[in-house]
Amino acid sequence: MTKNPLLIPEIRQFLKNNDKKAIQEFCQSTHPGLVAEFISPLTREEIWQLLKMVDPDLRAEIFSHLDLDLQIQLTESLSRQELAELISEMSPDDRVDLLKKLPEELKETLLPAIAQAEREDIRRLSSYPEGTAGAVMTSDYATLPPDINVKEALEKLRKEAPDKETIYYCYVVDDDRRLLGFVSLKDLILARPDTLVKEIMNKDLIYAHVLEDQEEVARKIQKYDLIALPVVDDNHALVGIITYDDAMDILTQEHTEDMEKLMAITGSHEAGAYMRTPVIEHFKNRCGWLILLALLGLVSGFIVERFEQVLVQFTILATFMPMLADTGGNTGSQSATLVVRALALKEITPGDCFKVLFKEFKVALLLGLTLAMVALIRVFIYYYTNSSNIPLEKIGAAVSIALCIQVVSSTLIGAALPLIAARFNKDPAVIASPALTTIVDITGLFVFFTTAKIILGI
Amino acid sequence: MTKNPLLIPEIRQFLKNNDKKAIQEFCQSTHPGLVAEFISPLTREEIWQLLKMVDPDLRAEIFSHLDLDLQIQLTESLSRQELAELISEMSPDDRVDLLKKLPEELKETLLPAIAQAEREDIRRLSSYPEGTAGAVMTSDYATLPPDINVKEALEKLRKEAPDKETIYYCYVVDDDRRLLGFVSLKDLILARPDTLVKEIMNKDLIYAHVLEDQEEVARKIQKYDLIALPVVDDNHALVGIITYDDAMDILTQEHTEDMEKLMAITGSHEAGAYMRTPVIEHFKNRCGWLILLALLGLVSGFIVERFEQVLVQFTILATFMPMLADTGGNTGSQSATLVVRALALKEITPGDCFKVLFKEFKVALLLGLTLAMVALIRVFIYYYTNSSNIPLEKIGAAVSIALCIQVVSSTLIGAALPLIAARFNKDPAVIASPALTTIVDITGLFVFFTTAKIILGI
Repeated sequence: MTKNPLLIPEIRQFLKNNDKKAIQEFCQSTHPGLVAEFISPLTREEIWQLLKMVDPDLRAEIFSHLDLDLQIQLTESLSRQELAELISEMSPDDRVDLLKKLPEELKETLLPAIAQAEREDIRRLSSYPEGTAGAVMTSDYATLPPDINVKEALEKLRKEAPDKETIYYCYVVDDDRRLLGFVSLKDLILARPDTLVKEIMNKDLIYAHVLEDQEEVARKIQKYDLIALPVVDDNHALVGIITYDDAMDILTQEHTEDMEKLMAITGSHEAGAYMRTPVIEHFKNRCGWLILLALLGLVSGFIVERFEQVLVQFTILATFMPMLADTGGNTGSQSATLVVRALALKEITPGDCFKVLFKEFKVALLLGLTLAMVALIRVFIYYYTNSSNIPLEKIGAAVSIALCIQVVSSTLIGAALPLIAARFNKDPAVIASPALTTIVDITGLFVFFTTAKIILGI
Repeated sequence: MTKNPLLIPEIRQFLKNNDKKAIQEFCQSTHPGLVAEFISPLTREEIWQLLKMVDPDLRAEIFSHLDLDLQIQLTESLSRQELAELISEMSPDDRVDLLKKLPEELKETLLPAIAQAEREDIRRLSSYPEGTAGAVMTSDYATLPPDINVKEALEKLRKEAPDKETIYYCYVVDDDRRLLGFVSLKDLILARPDTLVKEIMNKDLIYAHVLEDQEEVARKIQKYDLIALPVVDDNHALVGIITYDDAMDILTQEHTEDMEKLMAITGSHEAGAYMRTPVIEHFKNRCGWLILLALLGLVSGFIVERFEQVLVQFTILATFMPMLADTGGNTGSQSATLVVRALALKEITPGDCFKVLFKEFKVALLLGLTLAMVALIRVFIYYYTNSSNIPLEKIGAAVSIALCIQVVSSTLIGAALPLIAARFNKDPAVIASPALTTIVDITGLFVFFTTAKIILGI
């Protein structure tokens, strides 16, 4: 199924002719996500003209599939009453996402126009800190009492299903909403009609606490292949569920943040954020580390200054400085990335520290020897293009040895820092690649000049 | 639900007493994923003792949840016949994953011991190239003919459900298995029993071609919040489905590869790969780019060599080289990462090129001016620690201006390269951060020495 650009002129024509029937037919026979995709390029007025032609619940569903930015823009064209109606029809988690982005004063005037039950639901879902299970859960789930039979359960679901995000997992709760177990719709379909729910319910279910980290929760859903995960409070009462589609979005968001962290960019990432984020915000997210690293970079400068005399005598050494620094940064970043990712995916634990370091040592030795060859090429080029009385064989030896040490030490530093961070329960990705580059620059230059001094006998 | 280490001694005790009933009860009342987690630390013999106590289908399910590495190790303790039985019970996609990892000669002797129908299914699923929809799909789906009614459909599902991976989406196919539409179990539960399936089926469904890229497929599942996506061949015949849980695993794997690509590590990533990958493989995955970049790094060396006279005259300039190079690499990598990720998440398209570059230009200018201050600090430190007749105000000006130009140009290069790659339909992540670092090193050093030459009037 690919985007069909032919549809836009067609939709426009329908709207021009005010052909309500054609629009309704199109919207009903097409996945709301696809409808949202098709209508996104239209003007705000056209989008509203179309949305007002369809039933309120389908309208809310299509609207929820639009980009959050576009949703916010679209709310501006609505009266308070229309907006309140739309929000009432949206699913609990989607509307809380939208409301969080609306201006505070608009929200204050909106809430009284929303029915009591929904208003309380919104208040409750908005009350959990960002990044917790509570902030991403939805309150649209089906519950069953333990003492009814399968036939009664299916009838209850038939009545409630149209309003629920998923009825594929139904949660069994007691009178105090305490979570007792769950039954899947598949279990219900397969069971004999007179069986009691409590007889077929799965008691050893996997759940999350309302304040648990959203990434942990998403990984649980991934690990156990769940369609939904129930969320409970301190009293073990069911307060919401998180569905697999939200888990996917959480994993994508967390991944973006990991990648940005690795590149020394701070701040949290939300859908559609790059273009929406103002310049000053981008600046703030990036400048912290950059300044710190530039200051740290000065230390490399001091090392160069300390060895100024070596440099004045053999300026050829300066020509190797960029390659030496870059190669160290590259090998260190590679091993750091592999270790960070392996830790995130729980392929390794901090306890595997020595096994990992030994493996990296072997890889680094191979890499170091290979790269030392490249350095020798450079020395030969110098030999053929310059007529000088510099002891080139000694320069070659010094550069090759220094490069080899640099590769091995950088690789080990790159692998060790995330492991150390993980051991102290810090996020391993905190060791950003740029930070690593700067650190191994310092160690690399020190090794380089020291080796050169010893071999050249200065 | 957290891992309970107390259970391991308990399980061991049950096994020692050969308490089949307790083991069966534990395995039946616990999620197979959790059982797999609990028994992973046991010895191979203990795992088999336990698995053999439970029903073949539950055995296969628990086995499928074990780490792929452990699965492979465990197969070694089984006879051909036992292994063939186990494989027959596993779900089609899981068993193909396992078979792909088994030695060729073992596979050849195994296949004849597996029933005809399963054998053909295995051959068919194994025949699609890695990374396509065909290679990750499963053949365990429920189909319905269009002309039966809802009551008959539910009866058919009741019969088939225990063997199917999901019955929540049922695909409606004609006599040639051509895909006509789908109905969800929710639709079936809600519809009147005498309604025909074709009347309630959703015709405008989202599907994938069997050779479509697995990442594209996973993103579709994510975008449209699907539980499963049907896969069709050239004749629009249904050949398999991909479920949401496989989509999650694909996204995680693709994330890892993106991250590694960004750090100039080649090769594909599979679950559990870090420790399993041999040293020589790690070496191969990393050395390609490193050698290329080391060679490219020599160009920086030639630039330094070209400006050797400037350097001999003002060795203080050498002390700024590391900071200048690192800062360029850092700012370039940051903007490249943001652009690569925004492109991957379709937040921006190559068509937004100028908008993105203008935004990056503004951010870079702010960063450049800020970092120029840091450079001036260094000049002052030099001033207070060295008594020399070097025109420090000119050095300060040269370094600050060069750093500012370096930050702006690196940021723009970092943002532009992925956009250019995307415009030519290449993977934007191909512009690895280390490559970028090396490129902006070259431009940076050239800018630095040229600026210094002009300002110092050499």
